[in-house]
Amino acid sequence: MAIQRSEFTARYANFVVHDNTVYLSGVIPENFDGSITEQCEEVFIAIDSLLGKAGSDKSKILSMQCFISSFEDFDQFNQAYDNWVDVENLPARATMQATLFDPRVKIEIVLVAAI
Amino acid sequence: MAIQRSEFTARYANFVVHDNTVYLSGVIPENFDGSITEQCEEVFIAIDSLLGKAGSDKSKILSMQCFISSFEDFDQFNQAYDNWVDVENLPARATMQATLFDPRVKIEIVLVAAI
Amino acid sequence: MAIQRSEFTARYANFVVHDNTVYLSGVIPENFDGSITEQCEEVFIAIDSLLGKAGSDKSKILSMQCFISSFEDFDQFNQAYDNWVDVENLPARATMQATLFDPRVKIEIVLVAAI
Repeated sequence: MAIQRSEFTARYANFVVHDNTVYLSGVIPENFDGSITEQCEEVFIAIDSLLGKAGSDKSKILSMQCFISSFEDFDQFNQAYDNWVDVENLPARATMQATLFDPRVKIEIVLVAAI
Repeated sequence: MAIQRSEFTARYANFVVHDNTVYLSGVIPENFDGSITEQCEEVFIAIDSLLGKAGSDKSKILSMQCFISSFEDFDQFNQAYDNWVDVENLPARATMQATLFDPRVKIEIVLVAAI
Repeated sequence: MAIQRSEFTARYANFVVHDNTVYLSGVIPENFDGSITEQCEEVFIAIDSLLGKAGSDKSKILSMQCFISSFEDFDQFNQAYDNWVDVENLPARATMQATLFDPRVKIEIVLVAAI
């Protein structure tokens, strides 16, 4: 089956579609100086946008890996997540702490969704 | 193809099935105070149970990402893994060190299996 | 659909194929003492070899998770990546910092590709 790739950035595709499944690149906020809540909200808006362009949406998320820069932010991350996630269609999820691209970046999400 | 989701916890599905593939949420032990060996054994029992509910089993694991809180535990992790894994059907595997949900949690596994 | 597994190492398959998709084990360099550039080059050569054995190639990569031991190496990692990646078929990508198997290992890549 053909592979569909999103418009490229310099270095990677924002998403790649294959066999009814879309793979997103790691999504980070645009504004690195936002609070954890603001960064999460930005990331979730970006995910919704990317999934829409791929022909999917948040009700079809299969699996999310959430990397947060500190578990001290875990409650606020969860609150933003709870405000966003489709409670009728909860994804599989894992959350790990990791040092991210820029010391100010507090959240990066990698996910796979159905089309 | 329809997406099947496991019974929900408050926040995520323990597993999601799509197109003959099951995606598990990150599996951690229930008893955070166990030794690395005990924590691994608990995680592998939980994985077997989740895969069974999804209509899969450990002989059908495609890919595992294992996050351990310290590579000092790597040998004991591998020993527990060796005691559990189906040697006729070894999965793809990667192991990284990461700070996990609770400082006492020594192991979290994210995996994808065939149905 | 049948699952195909690569020749085994002691503990995991180098890759597993299912439903037109190949899952690679985490790929690290063989020479732990190489520079970040050398380690990346070794990893990309190994990926090309594994994808070839699986009946795929780098133009069919869907998603890559790149774990680097320090973001201080990020520019050199990107340079090696840019020299290798198929610019007509860019994959989804995420890069996180993680402590890896051996303190000398600077790069580990986990990826999924189409067949």
